[in-house]
Amino acid sequence: MKLWDKGFSTDKKIDHFTVGNDRELDLLLAKYDVIASTAHAKMLAKVGLISEDEGIALEKELKFILGTIEQGTFTIEDDFEDMHSKIEFLLTERLGDIGKKIHSARSRNDQVLVAMQLFLKEELNEIKSQVKALFDLLIELAEKHQQVLLPGYTHLQIAMPSSFGLWFSAYAESLVDDLYFVQAAYKVADQNPLGSAAGYGSSFPIDRTFTTEELGFETLKYNVVAAQMGRGKVEKATAFGISSIAATLSKLAMDITLYMSQNFDFISFPNELTTGSSIMPHKKNPDVFELIRAKCNKIQAVPNQLTLITNNLPSGYHRDLQLVKESIVPALQDMKACLEMMTFSLKEIRVNQNILNDPKYDYLFSVDTLNEMVKNGMPFRDAYKTMGTAIENGTFKPNKDIEHSHEGSLGNLKLNEIENKFKVIWNA
Amino acid sequence: MKLWDKGFSTDKKIDHFTVGNDRELDLLLAKYDVIASTAHAKMLAKVGLISEDEGIALEKELKFILGTIEQGTFTIEDDFEDMHSKIEFLLTERLGDIGKKIHSARSRNDQVLVAMQLFLKEELNEIKSQVKALFDLLIELAEKHQQVLLPGYTHLQIAMPSSFGLWFSAYAESLVDDLYFVQAAYKVADQNPLGSAAGYGSSFPIDRTFTTEELGFETLKYNVVAAQMGRGKVEKATAFGISSIAATLSKLAMDITLYMSQNFDFISFPNELTTGSSIMPHKKNPDVFELIRAKCNKIQAVPNQLTLITNNLPSGYHRDLQLVKESIVPALQDMKACLEMMTFSLKEIRVNQNILNDPKYDYLFSVDTLNEMVKNGMPFRDAYKTMGTAIENGTFKPNKDIEHSHEGSLGNLKLNEIENKFKVIWNA
Amino acid sequence: MKLWDKGFSTDKKIDHFTVGNDRELDLLLAKYDVIASTAHAKMLAKVGLISEDEGIALEKELKFILGTIEQGTFTIEDDFEDMHSKIEFLLTERLGDIGKKIHSARSRNDQVLVAMQLFLKEELNEIKSQVKALFDLLIELAEKHQQVLLPGYTHLQIAMPSSFGLWFSAYAESLVDDLYFVQAAYKVADQNPLGSAAGYGSSFPIDRTFTTEELGFETLKYNVVAAQMGRGKVEKATAFGISSIAATLSKLAMDITLYMSQNFDFISFPNELTTGSSIMPHKKNPDVFELIRAKCNKIQAVPNQLTLITNNLPSGYHRDLQLVKESIVPALQDMKACLEMMTFSLKEIRVNQNILNDPKYDYLFSVDTLNEMVKNGMPFRDAYKTMGTAIENGTFKPNKDIEHSHEGSLGNLKLNEIENKFKVIWNA
Amino acid sequence: MKLWDKGFSTDKKIDHFTVGNDRELDLLLAKYDVIASTAHAKMLAKVGLISEDEGIALEKELKFILGTIEQGTFTIEDDFEDMHSKIEFLLTERLGDIGKKIHSARSRNDQVLVAMQLFLKEELNEIKSQVKALFDLLIELAEKHQQVLLPGYTHLQIAMPSSFGLWFSAYAESLVDDLYFVQAAYKVADQNPLGSAAGYGSSFPIDRTFTTEELGFETLKYNVVAAQMGRGKVEKATAFGISSIAATLSKLAMDITLYMSQNFDFISFPNELTTGSSIMPHKKNPDVFELIRAKCNKIQAVPNQLTLITNNLPSGYHRDLQLVKESIVPALQDMKACLEMMTFSLKEIRVNQNILNDPKYDYLFSVDTLNEMVKNGMPFRDAYKTMGTAIENGTFKPNKDIEHSHEGSLGNLKLNEIENKFKVIWNA
Repeated sequence: MKLWDKGFSTDKKIDHFTVGNDRELDLLLAKYDVIASTAHAKMLAKVGLISEDEGIALEKELKFILGTIEQGTFTIEDDFEDMHSKIEFLLTERLGDIGKKIHSARSRNDQVLVAMQLFLKEELNEIKSQVKALFDLLIELAEKHQQVLLPGYTHLQIAMPSSFGLWFSAYAESLVDDLYFVQAAYKVADQNPLGSAAGYGSSFPIDRTFTTEELGFETLKYNVVAAQMGRGKVEKATAFGISSIAATLSKLAMDITLYMSQNFDFISFPNELTTGSSIMPHKKNPDVFELIRAKCNKIQAVPNQLTLITNNLPSGYHRDLQLVKESIVPALQDMKACLEMMTFSLKEIRVNQNILNDPKYDYLFSVDTLNEMVKNGMPFRDAYKTMGTAIENGTFKPNKDIEHSHEGSLGNLKLNEIENKFKVIWNA
Repeated sequence: MKLWDKGFSTDKKIDHFTVGNDRELDLLLAKYDVIASTAHAKMLAKVGLISEDEGIALEKELKFILGTIEQGTFTIEDDFEDMHSKIEFLLTERLGDIGKKIHSARSRNDQVLVAMQLFLKEELNEIKSQVKALFDLLIELAEKHQQVLLPGYTHLQIAMPSSFGLWFSAYAESLVDDLYFVQAAYKVADQNPLGSAAGYGSSFPIDRTFTTEELGFETLKYNVVAAQMGRGKVEKATAFGISSIAATLSKLAMDITLYMSQNFDFISFPNELTTGSSIMPHKKNPDVFELIRAKCNKIQAVPNQLTLITNNLPSGYHRDLQLVKESIVPALQDMKACLEMMTFSLKEIRVNQNILNDPKYDYLFSVDTLNEMVKNGMPFRDAYKTMGTAIENGTFKPNKDIEHSHEGSLGNLKLNEIENKFKVIWNA
Repeated sequence: MKLWDKGFSTDKKIDHFTVGNDRELDLLLAKYDVIASTAHAKMLAKVGLISEDEGIALEKELKFILGTIEQGTFTIEDDFEDMHSKIEFLLTERLGDIGKKIHSARSRNDQVLVAMQLFLKEELNEIKSQVKALFDLLIELAEKHQQVLLPGYTHLQIAMPSSFGLWFSAYAESLVDDLYFVQAAYKVADQNPLGSAAGYGSSFPIDRTFTTEELGFETLKYNVVAAQMGRGKVEKATAFGISSIAATLSKLAMDITLYMSQNFDFISFPNELTTGSSIMPHKKNPDVFELIRAKCNKIQAVPNQLTLITNNLPSGYHRDLQLVKESIVPALQDMKACLEMMTFSLKEIRVNQNILNDPKYDYLFSVDTLNEMVKNGMPFRDAYKTMGTAIENGTFKPNKDIEHSHEGSLGNLKLNEIENKFKVIWNA
Repeated sequence: MKLWDKGFSTDKKIDHFTVGNDRELDLLLAKYDVIASTAHAKMLAKVGLISEDEGIALEKELKFILGTIEQGTFTIEDDFEDMHSKIEFLLTERLGDIGKKIHSARSRNDQVLVAMQLFLKEELNEIKSQVKALFDLLIELAEKHQQVLLPGYTHLQIAMPSSFGLWFSAYAESLVDDLYFVQAAYKVADQNPLGSAAGYGSSFPIDRTFTTEELGFETLKYNVVAAQMGRGKVEKATAFGISSIAATLSKLAMDITLYMSQNFDFISFPNELTTGSSIMPHKKNPDVFELIRAKCNKIQAVPNQLTLITNNLPSGYHRDLQLVKESIVPALQDMKACLEMMTFSLKEIRVNQNILNDPKYDYLFSVDTLNEMVKNGMPFRDAYKTMGTAIENGTFKPNKDIEHSHEGSLGNLKLNEIENKFKVIWNA
C-alpha cells in the first residue's frame, strides 16, 4: 500500500530501489511520527476539521500504537513503504473512515519533517548529557592527576613541561566550544514545521500554534517554504554539532594511542580495554580508541555528504531529500557509542608518575630557566642567546622546580572557571 | 630576520616554501597583532615585567605602527618572514632593547591565535550586519510582492500555488537559522588565548584577565593547551558559520537562475546586472548569481578542507596549522562579496505579475479544490479519489480564489514574527 | 572465539563496539576469503610448510565451505568476531590440528587485504559491464533520435540548437572518461598482497608468486609494507573510479528531472517509472531519477570519507582501517543499483518531437544565421553587430534549416568513433 | 573591453566580482591560448574560412605574442577581462579586421577548454617527471639502507622487525599506484575540445581533426556537448590524480615527523632543513615536512571542492565553471612544490644505525622465534601458546638473526621488480 497508489502496479525493482532501508530507519522514528500525529489529530478536532469524538478515537488508537513501539512489537512489513503507510493502515483498520481523516491538512513531507525534528531534539539532548558526563570525568581526572608532569610537544619535538592536569582539562574546555554548535543545531530543530504540508501550506484553517505548544517546540518555522527547506538543513545543522564533538574526541583518541605506544609510555589501560597478543606480551593494542578516532573521523565526513546530496537543488521538495535520513541517523548512533566508550574507558586510565625523570626530557626546562633570567632584568633576546651558549657548552642544568602560576597554567588550572563556562552553555 | 635564527642561513628554497603567501595575508591581520601587542605591553608593565616607562614607550610606538596600517603604508618586505618579525623589527629599530622586551611571556603561537581571533570577531560582526541587510531586503520584497502568485514545485513538477511573498520570506527565515551558527562561531572566537605562549603557558606571573578585558574578549580560553588547540578549531567554527549562510545564498541563486530562464520567465533584472549577446537578444545571462552560487559552494568546501589539514594531528603545535589562514581568510572575503552582491542585485529584481494565467498552471489548484470537499465533510482519501476521476473526465475547473490563512501560509506570512525571531538571535 | 584471545573475557560492551557490522559485510566477502585461503593452503603444501595430505584436506574442506557460501547457507554467528574466525573454527572442527595450520605465514591483515582486493576486482568488472550496457543504450538512443532537435542552453538561457542525438551520445562519450578511472582502480587492486602478513612479512619461506598466479592477480604488491599501506588506499582508488561514473549519472539524472518538468516538457516516461498523484494528473514525479542523482551524489562523498578515516595515520596497521569496509561496500552496491536503474528506465524514454516549433525557441537560430554572413565574407565582429541590429529592429527571421557538419556536431555525431574509443579502453 | 559588450556600461562592482583573479591565473594559461589560437587560425585558412594570407598574418602575430609571454613581458591590464580579450585586442590593433576573424567558429568556452587541457597535459607531464625523481631516490635510499633495521608497528605498538629498505621502497611502490590515476587524468585531458564552441558546435565546416593533430592531442572529444561537459570534469580528473600522490607524500611526511621526534629518534636531517631554537638545542623542527603534509592534505580537499562547485548543474555552460580554474591551478603549483621539496630534503636524510639495540625493542623478534617452532612442525596455534608461556615466565630470549627471504620481505626487497612496474606505467 502506497499513498500515491495510482491503480497500476509499479515495477518491483523500482519499489526496492526507491524504498531503500527506510523501513529499518523508520523503526527509530516511528515514535515521533505517532506523537506528532496525536498533536495533529487534537488540532484537527480543535479547529473543527474532525469531530471531538473522532479526535478522541484517533488519539486513543495512536496511544495504543505508541505502546507497541515502546514495547518493541511495532513492525513495518514489506507491504508498507514506510512508517507513515503502516500507521495509517493500522488506524484505518481499527477506525475505518475516521482513520483516513488524519491525513487532512498535512502531507508526508511535513510528517517526516516534524518526526525528524522531534527525534533530533531528543538525540541532541542525549548527546549533551553524554558530553556532560565526559566533561565531568575529564575535570575529575585533571584534578586527580594535576601534579603529574608530562612532556609538552611542539612539532612532535619535546618543548616545555606540561601536566596531566593540563592535558585532561584542555579536552574538557574544548568540549565547551563544541556545545555551542550542538546548541545551535538544537535551536534549528526546535521550530515546528508541522502544517507546511508539501511545502506550500494548506487551505485548511489549521492552528499551528496549537501543535507547536502541544509538541513542545520553542517556536514555529513560520514560512511553509522555509519549513520545507529545513529538510536536509536541520540534519546538516545536527551534523555540524556532532562533527565538532567528534573532532575533539578524535584528537583525544590520537593522543591516547600515541601515549600508549612503547615509545611514549605515558599511560596504560587494564587488559579488558585493550587487545593483545600472547606472543607479544608488551602489546596493548588501543583498538577502542582507534575505533573512536575512526568513527569520529567518519562522522566529520557527514556535513559534506549532506551538502553533496542537497546542494544546487532548487527550492521545493525533491525525492533526493529522502536520503539524508540514512546519513544522519547512523551518525548519531555512532556519536553516542563513541561518547559512551570514551567515558567508559577513560575512567580506567592509568597515569605514569615519573615520566620526566628520563634525562631525555631535561631540555623541557630550558625555557623556564631562561625566563628566570628575564625576570631578573635581562632583555628576552639577550637571555635567549646566553642560554643557548650555556647549553652548547654543556653547562646547562635543568631546574625542575618550575612554577607556573598564571590563569590556565599548570600550576593554576582554573577548573572551577572551566566548569562555570560549561554550566553557562549547558543552561542556555 | 627570523625569530628562530640559528646563525646559519637556511636554504632559500625552503624559505620560499615555508613562508608561502603569509606576508600577503598578514597585511589583513597586522592591525590585530598590533592591538594585541599593545595590550600585552600594558600588562607586562602592570605586573612589573617591564617598567612603566618601557610600557609607555612600547605603547606609543605600537600606536604609530597602527597608524601606518590604517593609512595603508605598512609593508612586509621579503626580508621578513611575517608581520610579527616586521613589527618586532620596527620596535627594536626605534626603541632598542626595550623593543625586544615585548616578546617576554608570549610566543608566536599565541600571537597568531589572538590576532586571528580578534580578526574573526570583526569579520563575523561585519557578516552579521550584511546578513541583516539581506534579511531586511527579503522581508521588504516579501511584503511588496505578497499578492503575486508563483507555481510551487515538488520534484520540479508543478504542484501547488506559492507566492513571491512566500518565496522571499522563506529565505529570510532560513537566514535566521544560519545566524545560530555564526553566533556559535563568535562565541568560540570570543575567548582570549593570549598568555598560552607555545601552548604550555609561561613561568612569568602574567595577568591574563587584564589582557582579556583590555582586548574586549568575553572570557579567557583558560587552559593553555586548550587555547593552543583552538588553532584550526576557531577557524573551522567560523567556516561552519559562513557555510550555513553560503548554503542559503547558493540555493537562492539556483532559484534565481532557474526563474530567469525563458522556460520559467518568473523574474528579470536590468541589463546592468546581466550579461548578454547582441545576436541573442533574449539572453540575460545571470552571471552574478551563477558566481554567487559557485563561490558559496566553494565556501561550503572550507570546513572539510580545514578538517583534512588538522585531522589526526596529536595535541601540541604543528607547522601544518599555518595553512589554515590561507583557507579561512579568502573564504571570508568571498562570503562578504557574495552577501554584498546578492543584496545589491536583489534590490533590482523585477517580478512578473500574471504568471499563473498560463493554463499550464491550472492543476496547481486541484489540491485546494479537494480540500474544499474535505471541509464539507468528505474523508480525505475519498475526496482524493473523487477529484481524480473528475480530472480524468476533463470536468475539472480550477478555482483560483484560494485562501490560505494559517500561520506562515501565503495568506498570512507572519513577517513580523520572522523579524522578531531575527531580532532575538541578533541581540543574543 | 577471537584470534587474540588472552584468557580473560573482554567487556561485552567493547565487543559490540569493536565488531560493528563486520559480520554482515563479511557475508559478501567470505567467498573471497575462502578462495584466498585455498591458494594459501596449496602454497603451504608446495613449499613444505604443511604436508601434501594436509594441503589436500584443507583444500577439500575449503571447497565445502565455499559451497555453503554459494548456496547461501554460510552464517557468522555472534560467537564469532568475523568471517576469519568462523572459517578457522569450521576447519578446526573438521580437521583438528590441520585446521590450525592454515594460519601459518599469514595474519588477518593480509587475509582482509587479499579478500577485499579479489572482491573489488569482481565488483569493478561487474560495474564495467553495466557501464557498457548503459553506453550501448545511449548510443542506440542517440542514433534513433538523432534528427530530433532540442534547445541548447548556456547559463540556463536558450542559446543554440542541440539535438537528442547530441544529448544522448554526450553522456556516452563522458562514460569513456570515467572508465579510465575504473581501470586505474582495477590496476591498483590487481596486485597480490597475500604474504605481507601483519605488514612486515614473514620468516617462513613462502612462495608469493605461486599464490599470485593461483589467484589470478596480474602482479604482486611486492613490498610488504606497501601491501599493508594498500589498506584504505585500494578502497579509495575504487571510490575514485565509481565517483567518476556517479558524477556522470548524477548530471544525466539532473537533466532528466529538468526536462520532465512541465516548464520544459522535452521527455516523458511511462507511468510505471514515475510516481504520481490522483488529484494532480499532470504530475509524473521522477523519483527514480531523483534517487539516482542523490545516491550518486552520496557516492561522490566516499573518497573524502575514506581520506578522513585514513589521513595522517603513520605507516603500519591501525584498527581505524577496519572502518573502510563499511564505506566502500555499500557504495558499490549503490553504484550497481544506480547503473541498473538508469539503463532499465532510460530504455523507456519518450522523446517529444516538435519542441522547437514553439516560437520561444526562435532565437536559437540567430548564431547560425550570423555564421552564414561570415561564410559570405563578413568579419565575425561586424556580422555580430549587423545581426544584433536586425534583431533589435524586429526584422530577424530564423532559418531553421541548419546544417552542422563538422566532427561531433549535431549533423555528424561520429557515433562509430565514440564506440571505438570505448572499445579501446574496454579492452585495455 | 568585453566580448559580450552591449553598449551600456556594466556596474564596476559587478566587473570586479565577476572577473575575480582571472587575470592573474590567465598569465599561466595565456601561452596555451596562443598555441591553440594559432592552430585555429591555420585551420580557418585550410578550410577557406579566411584567406591563406590572413592565416599567415595571424600566425605571425600570434608567434610574436607567444614570444612576449615566454619573455615574461605579456600583461593583462585591468581594462581587459581576461587573456582572451587582451590577445584579441593585440591582434586587432595590429591586423585590423583580420584580427577579428580569428573568433570565427569558436567561442570563449572552447578557447578556455583547449587552453586548460593543453596546460593540464604539460603540468601532469612535469609532475610525472617529479614523481620519477622521487621514486628513483626512494629506491636508491632503500638499497643503501637495506640492512638497517627499524621497529615495525601495528596500532602504534612495536610489533615486528622492519627495515629502512622496506620503509623507503614501500613509498616507491605506492607511487606506482598513484601514477595510474595521473595517467587516467592525462587520458581525459588528451582529447581535443576545440570546435565545440559554446557547447553546441558550429555551422562552419571546420576541420577538428586538423587542429587535433596540430595541437598534439591523441584524439578528439568528438561530441560537442561532451566536450563542453569536460569543463570541470577534466580538472577533477587531474585533482584525483594529484590527490593520489598527495596522500602518499602526506603519509611519508607523517612518518618522518614522528621518526624525528625524540621519542623515536630514528632519522635526522641537517640543520639547514630544520628549524630550531637556541634555548632548546635538541629541537629540530620538521617544518618542511609538516608543510608538505599540510599542503598535501589541502590538495586532497580539491576533488571535493570541484564536485561541490559543479554538482547538480544541468548540462550546458554555467558561469560557475569559471571558478574551477582558481581551485586546480594553485593545487598544481602546490603539488609540484611538495614533490620538489620532498626529493630535495629526503636526499639529506640521516638514518640511525643501531635502533634495535635498545632492549625496549626485544619483543619485536617474538613472532619470528615462534615461526621457527612452526617450521619445526608445531601447529601454529600451539606454538603461539607455548611461546606466550615462555614470555610470561621471563625465559624469552630474542633471536635477532632473523631471515626474511620471501618476495618483498626485508631480506628480498625486489627493487628491480618494483622499478619494472614503474617503467611499465611510465611508458604506457
